[in-house]
Amino acid sequence: MEKIPYKIYLNETEMPTAWYNVRSDMKNKPAPLLNPGTHQPMTAEELASVFCEELVAQELDNDTPYIEIPEEIRNFYKMYRPSPLVRAYCLEEKLGTPAKIYYKFEGNNTSGSHKLNSAIAQAYYAKKQGLKGVTTETGAGQWGTALSMACSYFGLDCKVYMVKVSYEQKPFRREVMRTYGASVTPSPSNTTNVGRKILEQFPGTTGSLGCAISEAVEVAVSSEGYRYVLGSVLNQVLLHQSVIGLETKAALDKYGIKPDMIIGCAGGGSNLGGLIAPFMGQKLRGEADYDIVAVEPASCPSFTRGKYAYDFCDTGMVCPLAKMYTLGSGFIPAPNHAGGLRYHGMSSTLSQLYDDGYMRAVAVPQTEVFEAAEQFARIEGILPAPESSHAIKVAIDEALKCKETGEEKTIVFGLTGTGYFDMVAYEQFHDGKMDDYIPTDEELAKSFAGLPVID
Amino acid sequence: MEKIPYKIYLNETEMPTAWYNVRSDMKNKPAPLLNPGTHQPMTAEELASVFCEELVAQELDNDTPYIEIPEEIRNFYKMYRPSPLVRAYCLEEKLGTPAKIYYKFEGNNTSGSHKLNSAIAQAYYAKKQGLKGVTTETGAGQWGTALSMACSYFGLDCKVYMVKVSYEQKPFRREVMRTYGASVTPSPSNTTNVGRKILEQFPGTTGSLGCAISEAVEVAVSSEGYRYVLGSVLNQVLLHQSVIGLETKAALDKYGIKPDMIIGCAGGGSNLGGLIAPFMGQKLRGEADYDIVAVEPASCPSFTRGKYAYDFCDTGMVCPLAKMYTLGSGFIPAPNHAGGLRYHGMSSTLSQLYDDGYMRAVAVPQTEVFEAAEQFARIEGILPAPESSHAIKVAIDEALKCKETGEEKTIVFGLTGTGYFDMVAYEQFHDGKMDDYIPTDEELAKSFAGLPVID
Repeated sequence: MEKIPYKIYLNETEMPTAWYNVRSDMKNKPAPLLNPGTHQPMTAEELASVFCEELVAQELDNDTPYIEIPEEIRNFYKMYRPSPLVRAYCLEEKLGTPAKIYYKFEGNNTSGSHKLNSAIAQAYYAKKQGLKGVTTETGAGQWGTALSMACSYFGLDCKVYMVKVSYEQKPFRREVMRTYGASVTPSPSNTTNVGRKILEQFPGTTGSLGCAISEAVEVAVSSEGYRYVLGSVLNQVLLHQSVIGLETKAALDKYGIKPDMIIGCAGGGSNLGGLIAPFMGQKLRGEADYDIVAVEPASCPSFTRGKYAYDFCDTGMVCPLAKMYTLGSGFIPAPNHAGGLRYHGMSSTLSQLYDDGYMRAVAVPQTEVFEAAEQFARIEGILPAPESSHAIKVAIDEALKCKETGEEKTIVFGLTGTGYFDMVAYEQFHDGKMDDYIPTDEELAKSFAGLPVID
Repeated sequence: MEKIPYKIYLNETEMPTAWYNVRSDMKNKPAPLLNPGTHQPMTAEELASVFCEELVAQELDNDTPYIEIPEEIRNFYKMYRPSPLVRAYCLEEKLGTPAKIYYKFEGNNTSGSHKLNSAIAQAYYAKKQGLKGVTTETGAGQWGTALSMACSYFGLDCKVYMVKVSYEQKPFRREVMRTYGASVTPSPSNTTNVGRKILEQFPGTTGSLGCAISEAVEVAVSSEGYRYVLGSVLNQVLLHQSVIGLETKAALDKYGIKPDMIIGCAGGGSNLGGLIAPFMGQKLRGEADYDIVAVEPASCPSFTRGKYAYDFCDTGMVCPLAKMYTLGSGFIPAPNHAGGLRYHGMSSTLSQLYDDGYMRAVAVPQTEVFEAAEQFARIEGILPAPESSHAIKVAIDEALKCKETGEEKTIVFGLTGTGYFDMVAYEQFHDGKMDDYIPTDEELAKSFAGLPVID
């Protein structure tokens, strides 16, 4: 058999021309978004005051298996995609494992992550609708960077609310967004009603994605010609991110490789949902079986310790209600936690799949994640983002298990991005100043209060 | 004809297996390095106290056209190479130019630049020789990062002297090197004799590559089991970097494309020398003609305003003398100048080629470079390093000339790296705090004093 190269690149002509909608193959569809006032499923009309029209259609579409990727988006994809599927020969050798390790590397673009895949799609539909601009929130800054790139490409205004702790830890992220013409405001801020309210209630708060979402939504619905866009959690985002999984599968198929395990880090679920999409589709249709693993931070453990219930998506409670694995919309993760994956809830689609037993979840503490990150960087050369390093940690653990058992498992994981803007966190790690704070049961019980918001 | 894709990737099997030594085709060989004491050409034996043995052989070899790339290096290359040759369709469209623009993008690795190509080679030969470690200097930090990655891969100790102004402007660069296990000292420092002397003479100096080289060399020759390695200027480095040009040429040949112009930024000459190598070879052999353009910063204009003379390579005058286009080894560029390309001299090989009329040079002011950088980022998505943006600036200018004349020139330029660690400079640019200081004739006359060191 042909030797598998270090990096499998698809040709441009082999790139996906349609996104795959995993909901189409789910028997139990994800629970609908509910109107927080009436508790009735949100209609397309209601959603259209917040989101772009075509994105609303994608959000609500549980049936169409493949949705064509517009040519403008495919052309933009061609500037930084296909991303490589890398065979981690060096890592395998250093670990001395019989496992075969592959990673899909999404970091080779200026946003530094997979987020650009959905940002360009959302900006495209906003432009097509004739909007002036969009608002959004960003945590670690990858999504905000991706969106500012996408908006700059289509000539849209871009207003970003950035979680305050990240804004302060990552001054250069702001500067990159500025290079792409976006405005960036640390959240919570005094620029919105909800921001002022949160600041009053929790003076000195370092913010959370939930707060920043509330602010961005408020600005979108109160500004002429603006809509809100979101980088994770939503069905539409998972749809766009399916390009990751489709490329991964095409690259594996090209060499006749069948993975045993697929591992992804999970915050809101965008990377994981995208990476696993076509594999999950096979599993749902009974065509193949895979061990699918979500990895989350022990400091923000929505899958492993959360409740599956209807909850608010944001702290300000201005968004629709979503049924999801959640820690409660009031949950604010420890500020010492590095980078993203800090969201209190999890994609409704992934929550349903998890609840139905189609995947499992693991929570890992922060220091071990950075140990894995540094090990990986030194062997494979790529300096990984803290988020991505959650998946690395579990992939290495699994490869070492194979070393014990002698199993030649094929492990695929998602390397969502690079850590160039996370050097403050790496510095804490090098200086031994990183801690592994994990919420206590009592703390979670407190943040669960009020759940479910509706039965 | 087959449509040229956005990105041309070679297959792994099409990657170069030998470096190309442009000196082999030069009628006028580059002038030899001279012993600063005797003014005689440095012998292999003399050089071996500073450099690794095999690297000395490569340094002195003006005859062998192709030198095999050892398998270990080729395997490392496969982790991040081949790099893409990108067709800038979007840039062409926005500029409205009939020109066809291609760029060879070397930024998709953690060092963020082409520097890794030579770093891994030099680390390999150091390891092969049984050394304990290496010392080096770094300006913008790309070379230091690349070398720390390479050393970490081969288990070598790595001591980096980083130009103080960059050390302060780029705290995160230090942290990346630390992730790869290197030690980083701001230069000039109190850790060496030459550093102490320079600090005494110029208290408060922000340093220069010339100072940092002196310190790194001193440490190497006075430490058991250490040698000094350099990221640019030397013949051996240009040899390793020929992998850039060889891949570029192979990618162009694959689609039958013949470039008219080849543009590269030039500090010490490593990227430019590597990019143009095989094209220059054809030109030297009379097989083809290309317009080859070196772009340098107006603040450090060694080609366009320097003297072609024997000079010291470092401020401390501990290194061999080299004949090159130079601003004088005492030249310290304005500290406000962003990033690399701050070296007072230019590769001896390129200097000879330039003197023989095989290429031309252009000097560009800093603000225009950042304007081009931002324009490029917004259109092509990649946030370029300030160094690389010098080439972008001239490529755009040339494409706009084609718009005037209607010429359908094919322009190839080297995009050496990304600007993720240059956000302080971008911030100065956004805040209008960037200036375009250019040395006066009087200042240059002063730094030329003492040239040529020897006739």
